[in-house]
Amino acid sequence: MIYKRRIHFYETDAQGIVHHSNYFRLFEEARGEFLRSIGVPYSKLREEGYEVVLLEAYCQFREPILYDQEVNVEVNLTEMDRYFFHFSYQVWVGERLKAVGKTKHCFTKGAKIVSIPQKLKDLLGCKTNEKN
Amino acid sequence: MIYKRRIHFYETDAQGIVHHSNYFRLFEEARGEFLRSIGVPYSKLREEGYEVVLLEAYCQFREPILYDQEVNVEVNLTEMDRYFFHFSYQVWVGERLKAVGKTKHCFTKGAKIVSIPQKLKDLLGCKTNEKN
Amino acid sequence: MIYKRRIHFYETDAQGIVHHSNYFRLFEEARGEFLRSIGVPYSKLREEGYEVVLLEAYCQFREPILYDQEVNVEVNLTEMDRYFFHFSYQVWVGERLKAVGKTKHCFTKGAKIVSIPQKLKDLLGCKTNEKN
Amino acid sequence: MIYKRRIHFYETDAQGIVHHSNYFRLFEEARGEFLRSIGVPYSKLREEGYEVVLLEAYCQFREPILYDQEVNVEVNLTEMDRYFFHFSYQVWVGERLKAVGKTKHCFTKGAKIVSIPQKLKDLLGCKTNEKN
Repeated sequence: MIYKRRIHFYETDAQGIVHHSNYFRLFEEARGEFLRSIGVPYSKLREEGYEVVLLEAYCQFREPILYDQEVNVEVNLTEMDRYFFHFSYQVWVGERLKAVGKTKHCFTKGAKIVSIPQKLKDLLGCKTNEKN
Repeated sequence: MIYKRRIHFYETDAQGIVHHSNYFRLFEEARGEFLRSIGVPYSKLREEGYEVVLLEAYCQFREPILYDQEVNVEVNLTEMDRYFFHFSYQVWVGERLKAVGKTKHCFTKGAKIVSIPQKLKDLLGCKTNEKN
Repeated sequence: MIYKRRIHFYETDAQGIVHHSNYFRLFEEARGEFLRSIGVPYSKLREEGYEVVLLEAYCQFREPILYDQEVNVEVNLTEMDRYFFHFSYQVWVGERLKAVGKTKHCFTKGAKIVSIPQKLKDLLGCKTNEKN
Repeated sequence: MIYKRRIHFYETDAQGIVHHSNYFRLFEEARGEFLRSIGVPYSKLREEGYEVVLLEAYCQFREPILYDQEVNVEVNLTEMDRYFFHFSYQVWVGERLKAVGKTKHCFTKGAKIVSIPQKLKDLLGCKTNEKN
């Protein structure tokens, strides 16, 4: 899935470029749209008592991104087992690959790690590269 | 009370100065230290089920503030009645008044506006200009 | 003009609602789209050496806004003279007016306040209520 | 070096914990204090035309951090060659290790990567584990 939007002025810093912490916010937005696109918006999951917890996050910053540029964030679910799932991200401005990233997550319910809900796993499964 | 700290790099924007939205975050920090200084940290109030809700916020930006500058935020409780209380703020860098602001608040408990807890009012009262 | 988008998770705070500082960021986004809609994106103005400086900002928070809600920010240019211009904002979620705000701005070039560029004034003028 | 401060309310999200993007901001603050502690505040380096550019960032989130908790961020310079330097971070609340992270950086001057300034390298060198 590709998530697209413009960079806001408040996302820049005194180097004149997007502050690195905001890439992780872009990733979060892209994940949110990914979940919505498969029919399970995170807000719905939260109503059912689930939280998606971030366990690890990584980003490689290849080139700066500027105010008002339009970024395309390609997000992919790359791995999923009983408890954990991983996303990868590519941030593009036009033809330039600006950053790549990945994140690792699990679900919690009542502050405990729970296995990924089956219904969601079915929906997510069709987007993974799993060989079941 | 005066709350003092340095400006972080991520608080700046591409104009090379502190982004305006972050002044309201500075105000929040200063309020937090004010409440702690009178013996009722906001985290304690939250444990008792209270939320401090922001109803209005205003800031006048007089001069830019730069990365790494040390700001002194003077915070005062200026007004308080049964339900509402107001703070004013002055943001200084050295001898220069960089910004002035004010905020209006109330307390909620279980999502309902409640009168300011008497114990807190006693503590806060001694810092207001109320003529009881 | 109406600027529309969903609330991101990172815009919420531990009260479970959008943090107040982020309303001012929403206002900025809405202003940016306003300027783009009349043909002068802020990024263009910056290329010509202009900065739009924020002088004052105010917001009244009427009702909380939640994660994933779709907000409509109505932005209007309400006043403009030789140097200063003002915007007003209404933040809606469906039929509910969640917040109202206003901001005051000027232009600078080379760190000096300058009169509003005539070309821009012409473009902006047609959107004000000025009685020339 | 250990950098210490309390968590601000605006750093939390609707899960009631510090939003993950803010860990990278904490790392930045800790780095800034590290540079100051060895006598070269980043603001000074910038005055001389240098920028510290972030190339990679990673964080593992072990346990949530809450509003008003006091965090201790231990920051270490772990690696340095002609162009690149690496920091590692441990975020503690009391005896609990809440997160670990690392970042990779280089210096630029006039938008070009430059070798690490010798004077700085001398200062930094005495804090690395390099066996030169």
